[in-house]
Amino acid sequence: MVTRLTDSPVYAHLWSTPELEEVFGETARWQAWLDVLVALARVQARHGLVPPEAAEQIAASARTEHLDMDRVAAGTRVTSHSTLGLIRELQRVLPESAREHVYVGATVQDVSDTWFGLVMRDVGDLVRRDVRALEATVLGLAEAHRDTPMAGRTHGQPGAPITFGFKAASWADELRRHLDRLDEGRPRWAVGQLAGAVGALAFHDTDVDPLDLRRDFCTELGLGDPGASWLTSRDRVAEFGQVLALVGGTLARIGGEIYELARPEIGELAEPTTATAVGSITMPHKRNPEVSEHLDTLARLARAAAGVLLEGTVVSHERDGRGWKAEWVALPEICLLTGTALGLARTLLDGLEVHADAMVANLDRFGDRLTSERVLAGLSGRLGKHAAQDLLQGVLASGEGVVDALVTRGVASADEVRGWMTRDAGTTAARMVDDVVSRARGREPGP
Amino acid sequence: MVTRLTDSPVYAHLWSTPELEEVFGETARWQAWLDVLVALARVQARHGLVPPEAAEQIAASARTEHLDMDRVAAGTRVTSHSTLGLIRELQRVLPESAREHVYVGATVQDVSDTWFGLVMRDVGDLVRRDVRALEATVLGLAEAHRDTPMAGRTHGQPGAPITFGFKAASWADELRRHLDRLDEGRPRWAVGQLAGAVGALAFHDTDVDPLDLRRDFCTELGLGDPGASWLTSRDRVAEFGQVLALVGGTLARIGGEIYELARPEIGELAEPTTATAVGSITMPHKRNPEVSEHLDTLARLARAAAGVLLEGTVVSHERDGRGWKAEWVALPEICLLTGTALGLARTLLDGLEVHADAMVANLDRFGDRLTSERVLAGLSGRLGKHAAQDLLQGVLASGEGVVDALVTRGVASADEVRGWMTRDAGTTAARMVDDVVSRARGREPGP
Amino acid sequence: MVTRLTDSPVYAHLWSTPELEEVFGETARWQAWLDVLVALARVQARHGLVPPEAAEQIAASARTEHLDMDRVAAGTRVTSHSTLGLIRELQRVLPESAREHVYVGATVQDVSDTWFGLVMRDVGDLVRRDVRALEATVLGLAEAHRDTPMAGRTHGQPGAPITFGFKAASWADELRRHLDRLDEGRPRWAVGQLAGAVGALAFHDTDVDPLDLRRDFCTELGLGDPGASWLTSRDRVAEFGQVLALVGGTLARIGGEIYELARPEIGELAEPTTATAVGSITMPHKRNPEVSEHLDTLARLARAAAGVLLEGTVVSHERDGRGWKAEWVALPEICLLTGTALGLARTLLDGLEVHADAMVANLDRFGDRLTSERVLAGLSGRLGKHAAQDLLQGVLASGEGVVDALVTRGVASADEVRGWMTRDAGTTAARMVDDVVSRARGREPGP
Amino acid sequence: MVTRLTDSPVYAHLWSTPELEEVFGETARWQAWLDVLVALARVQARHGLVPPEAAEQIAASARTEHLDMDRVAAGTRVTSHSTLGLIRELQRVLPESAREHVYVGATVQDVSDTWFGLVMRDVGDLVRRDVRALEATVLGLAEAHRDTPMAGRTHGQPGAPITFGFKAASWADELRRHLDRLDEGRPRWAVGQLAGAVGALAFHDTDVDPLDLRRDFCTELGLGDPGASWLTSRDRVAEFGQVLALVGGTLARIGGEIYELARPEIGELAEPTTATAVGSITMPHKRNPEVSEHLDTLARLARAAAGVLLEGTVVSHERDGRGWKAEWVALPEICLLTGTALGLARTLLDGLEVHADAMVANLDRFGDRLTSERVLAGLSGRLGKHAAQDLLQGVLASGEGVVDALVTRGVASADEVRGWMTRDAGTTAARMVDDVVSRARGREPGP
Repeated sequence: MVTRLTDSPVYAHLWSTPELEEVFGETARWQAWLDVLVALARVQARHGLVPPEAAEQIAASARTEHLDMDRVAAGTRVTSHSTLGLIRELQRVLPESAREHVYVGATVQDVSDTWFGLVMRDVGDLVRRDVRALEATVLGLAEAHRDTPMAGRTHGQPGAPITFGFKAASWADELRRHLDRLDEGRPRWAVGQLAGAVGALAFHDTDVDPLDLRRDFCTELGLGDPGASWLTSRDRVAEFGQVLALVGGTLARIGGEIYELARPEIGELAEPTTATAVGSITMPHKRNPEVSEHLDTLARLARAAAGVLLEGTVVSHERDGRGWKAEWVALPEICLLTGTALGLARTLLDGLEVHADAMVANLDRFGDRLTSERVLAGLSGRLGKHAAQDLLQGVLASGEGVVDALVTRGVASADEVRGWMTRDAGTTAARMVDDVVSRARGREPGP
Repeated sequence: MVTRLTDSPVYAHLWSTPELEEVFGETARWQAWLDVLVALARVQARHGLVPPEAAEQIAASARTEHLDMDRVAAGTRVTSHSTLGLIRELQRVLPESAREHVYVGATVQDVSDTWFGLVMRDVGDLVRRDVRALEATVLGLAEAHRDTPMAGRTHGQPGAPITFGFKAASWADELRRHLDRLDEGRPRWAVGQLAGAVGALAFHDTDVDPLDLRRDFCTELGLGDPGASWLTSRDRVAEFGQVLALVGGTLARIGGEIYELARPEIGELAEPTTATAVGSITMPHKRNPEVSEHLDTLARLARAAAGVLLEGTVVSHERDGRGWKAEWVALPEICLLTGTALGLARTLLDGLEVHADAMVANLDRFGDRLTSERVLAGLSGRLGKHAAQDLLQGVLASGEGVVDALVTRGVASADEVRGWMTRDAGTTAARMVDDVVSRARGREPGP
Repeated sequence: MVTRLTDSPVYAHLWSTPELEEVFGETARWQAWLDVLVALARVQARHGLVPPEAAEQIAASARTEHLDMDRVAAGTRVTSHSTLGLIRELQRVLPESAREHVYVGATVQDVSDTWFGLVMRDVGDLVRRDVRALEATVLGLAEAHRDTPMAGRTHGQPGAPITFGFKAASWADELRRHLDRLDEGRPRWAVGQLAGAVGALAFHDTDVDPLDLRRDFCTELGLGDPGASWLTSRDRVAEFGQVLALVGGTLARIGGEIYELARPEIGELAEPTTATAVGSITMPHKRNPEVSEHLDTLARLARAAAGVLLEGTVVSHERDGRGWKAEWVALPEICLLTGTALGLARTLLDGLEVHADAMVANLDRFGDRLTSERVLAGLSGRLGKHAAQDLLQGVLASGEGVVDALVTRGVASADEVRGWMTRDAGTTAARMVDDVVSRARGREPGP
Repeated sequence: MVTRLTDSPVYAHLWSTPELEEVFGETARWQAWLDVLVALARVQARHGLVPPEAAEQIAASARTEHLDMDRVAAGTRVTSHSTLGLIRELQRVLPESAREHVYVGATVQDVSDTWFGLVMRDVGDLVRRDVRALEATVLGLAEAHRDTPMAGRTHGQPGAPITFGFKAASWADELRRHLDRLDEGRPRWAVGQLAGAVGALAFHDTDVDPLDLRRDFCTELGLGDPGASWLTSRDRVAEFGQVLALVGGTLARIGGEIYELARPEIGELAEPTTATAVGSITMPHKRNPEVSEHLDTLARLARAAAGVLLEGTVVSHERDGRGWKAEWVALPEICLLTGTALGLARTLLDGLEVHADAMVANLDRFGDRLTSERVLAGLSGRLGKHAAQDLLQGVLASGEGVVDALVTRGVASADEVRGWMTRDAGTTAARMVDDVVSRARGREPGP
């Protein structure tokens, strides 16, 4: 029974994606676990531990469509063991000759941690793909608006001018660092687990080389060999969660920026709309930045999950059910939240409305004031920086027009002041855009 | 599609209970939302806003069994609106004369926050019932073992003696404070919401008294009137989450205690076992304290959810989708986690094995050392507290027998030292048990 | 050496207040600990455990001005014990006859937890006073602006009208609930601790009644008796932290509202300024909402500290240094953050600039659109709610003037539509203001 | 005035180290900020923006010993600006000819973020050094105890054998991954900031190339150039905090292991003791694992700080005081906590007592049972894995001796069973030790 609103058929599109359902959907997860068992049997067959025919029988039978999941559930409850219900049902559907050869020498975590390795590899790759696509979109915005002037804002107040491309480049720069983190961390988290009861692989310490067996098991699944058992060495999982939470932070930052700049009083950005969307049923005029908001929602929940994974690094002894079960919830959760956020962010940024006219209008609206950094720079050349600042602050506080005031005080001519004010605001900002773009292009030459 | 492992049919028993499924199960939640709409229509009918027959038609039709939830889902996705899919489907199944009279003047949060009020009331009551039942069990343990001596432990090291009843009384005392918190907070969180677009109830500000209408609406549902709209005043929800997280902390503390004292090297407590449970499939001898562990797991996740709810108090303006959607996930989650934990804790403590013999054996094993606080008290009477401590510390560090050493040093006779050592360890501890029991009985005279 | 920027003489005013320095300043804390020892000695004297003269000598000597804190520090480091350095220095300055009578039978937590009780009582009272004062200020704003119209905002977008008084009343309502929480929780957290080694008070279990002694000790300090030792029952501390974090959430919410509404593009609120404040040294025109921002900063850090305290409820056995030392940092921290935030919030709200003209101007600016909820209500009376909504949504999407469009469509006369639009927007909002005010006045009759 | 217990002269050794005081101590921080201003002036002189003599005068005067910090504090309070008090005091002590040339074109974050870059570089390097030293110590333990048998423990219950070296190797493996994270992240966080008002470097956009100036400024301080302004791109800081929190998690895991295995009932490990340490003043016999505990305490607080930094990635616009001020507290805090933890952990592990005899005794104590994984492997060869498990589980549940029971049931001879039981338990475990050691040696060839 669905008890989590995130799994509600009506709301699931806000908390998952079809692609992630292929990873975390109930059937998909069971099949992935079964695939791990198949890989184990095949590798054990190759090492002479189980008959090759048994391994192939396992491969043929270990399909969710053959299993009665109600029996799995009942077996799980009656044994209070996480996988024994599965094993018994699997044995039931296997030919008798193969029954003893499934799930040999493995433990729950060998299956679930190896699945974690697969998940971190595959979701990590999806995340990388989406972050990269988002970077491309954002770089496109940065280039297109390299010279589109707008007010920079600090402490929520319009300040000196920037360009919208500069703002976008700052997003892209942050996304690029996430790509690096994803690439660097991948070898640490895309690994398998074959550890046995206490990590020492003692069950297999018989006629085969257990470490060879483990390496082949990992290779069979396209995973790296972990080197040492990591039953209670959970930094791999925590780090993966942290990188995803960082990605979520960037998306929430972008969402927040759109949310604020889409205020009608500002009107510089707007979410794309669809013909059928309804903002508010009580206020028919509303056009709510719901995607932008949702990026913040998803990031909050992702941070909470990342915190659980981080706490999960403090574990006891050779196996510790407290952290591991918490990971069973928190790792899929952060994957689902992050993947959903990335999909939403791509749609949002692909269709982002940039109102360059409003940007200029807002700059004009606050007029002289926003150029104060420039006038200060100009005045500093002749008065010294701090004397210039004291003077200018007095002028602005008095409400006088800047040009008149400075002329009156005899520190500059009207032309000089106007020259400072109108000097192209975004030269350096635009050059940083170029720099961010060229670095990204250098790293990722593709389209 | 189920994507959350917590909703997996195989594992759901670890993350929910049948009783909570009656609250949070997909159908149950939709029915609860529909019931809110029915209450609204009925109260609006009473106030002359909708025809009475329409209200009754709504009551008859607003049943999940009449609705096509696929249509609800499709409508939700196409409108990007949280309840418009529901409304349209509801209109579809209503007689034409009633179609315009459903969901009149209300907004999403009027429905979902009122549902939150119902949830906090009902889950709060379930939690109270279970905390109370647990308190009764634990008080029973406290009384039964009022005088069962065991080593107190500080910093993980056996120290001066306590009784097991004293330990249990400390749990009961904490549970009692939770009961008080639940009682005190209930009027704050068991309230309805009828706020309209921006909280000002403007839609209803026509021919009726909107505040009367709201009060009647809340009464109809057995909820308190909120006094003021709380669309962005979320302390009610955050507080409820905090109290539940505190309850979870107590259960994790109890679970942790059992986990540690169930170590075979200590052996003082043990989880109840069932005939069919299997500890480990690679180590057939194992008997794992899995319920105790799981209480810790659940508490961690509950703390994370409580953190999300707390962060959700920082909201903007008259409605803020960022926090509210996070609450949609985090509030049910913490309810489910806490309710599950309470169920498990009740089973655990109902069947807790207390090995009084092992408690005594451990006390004996560390012998003289554990009585050092008593000997120190005895010696302090004649040497002064700090001189006594210096002396005793030297004796213990030297490895000498305490009795002999003190006799040799001429500070006490052997009988005196033995008298200090054997004096009934738990007098005061046992009296605190009595105190905790009698206070609880005084508060809750029932069985 | 000061290593925390919060303790920097240059920045301390952002992270503490003079009043809180009287509680948490190095000297104040030591004196408070010494006062606990004095109370202990006096009560022990009353019970015949130490000579009355010794108790008075302790009272005379246990003053920070008599102690060499360098010796305390050195003694602490050499013994690796939290209070032994203090005890030895105290003994050094005591007359020989009193040396053995100080700190008798107590442990570190008896001192530090009792100090926690004092802190929670006293800081709790300061917090209550400031929350109450803030409530009074905010109620004043609510009354003064009971009928000051402004746009309600949902999802960051201007929506139907409210009054500023209604917004303020929502803040006051939330503050009122905090007052209730503070009052209800006080008996739980304003308690002393006298527990001895493992909570069983065994040291004192000699010639006196240890529970009588504890009660008198608590009374001597103006604290409640805890009933049972709470060395590892930390819900009291965690709850206190939660209530403070909730208060911080409200202040951050208020600060966030001011931050957003102080954007020059909106201009409805502004922080008070001081003649000497400098917004920006590079942009002399800026006037930053720094206090509003800082309320958010303080709330974040407070939430983190509250999380540490909550995690601290999961403790082991009869004493657990892991959580307790974390509390030593986190409890004072959340007190300092919350107290600072309250002081800032009082200044902020006492001088808050409310630009009623800008509020009206913004309402006018978005004109017809913001009255859509009203027009919808009016139309619903004749078309039905959902038909009215579909119609109105179409009109608004088309960009037509609402009056003309509805007249053209023949659903209402121009006068009717204008009547709906101009109907006093805030009737119900204003009545909720009255309700919040009168409830608060009923609870707190004073000025 | 010191208000944080972490800064108390008596307790500071638990929350900082002398080395970290050189970074974060009040004077050290101010000097570091001044050094940033000196570097700025020198580089500006090189670019012709300020007279070279002024730059050198600034270098000579910008020393904390020349400044009156009370004036700085007063100036900070009166201006409500974070650095204007500093600037004015600096101007006061500068020769008149240099006064206008200090702090030209820079903003608070240019100073404080560049200081962050220095801190992350330098503390990152200290952390790396200590993690590496710890790895070396732990590898030494792993090698020395490569073959020291002990019980593996799962769910707190003794299970199949491992070696202590295997346990230590798992720690070392985790530490090695931290070294990789520190190395990979360093280029991201060891960067300077020169951004001006809104990140566009507009002040400097005059006669010089601002990007050249920034590059030279960073180089002057030994930092990397950031490429783009990162005033509101805070992933660099958050990532640094995450890596440190991960390190803290490992240390808490190690500490927890020692805490548990140092229980007298287990007795396999013990903290080193010092002659003068006092465990308990009420229980003179106690020897508390206080360092192990404190590693957990420090890790909790570090996780809380890391959470604040992670939340700080969600920032608004071009500058956002909310997150930045929170970082001012949380970044130094996590550095101080982590550095302290590493120092403690080094001492703890350098002197760790390993009681190999107790390890063997515990293995023997649980006798046959702990070898069940091996017997299961042996039996599986002839009965099949699952049949063997069912059989063995029944035998163990019955309490029969394993050898006798299997002989009786005719499934193996006594010699066979004993052979399985006594087979060298740790072959594979020991080989993983070798693997971890050789990989570390390969990466870090030094001593």
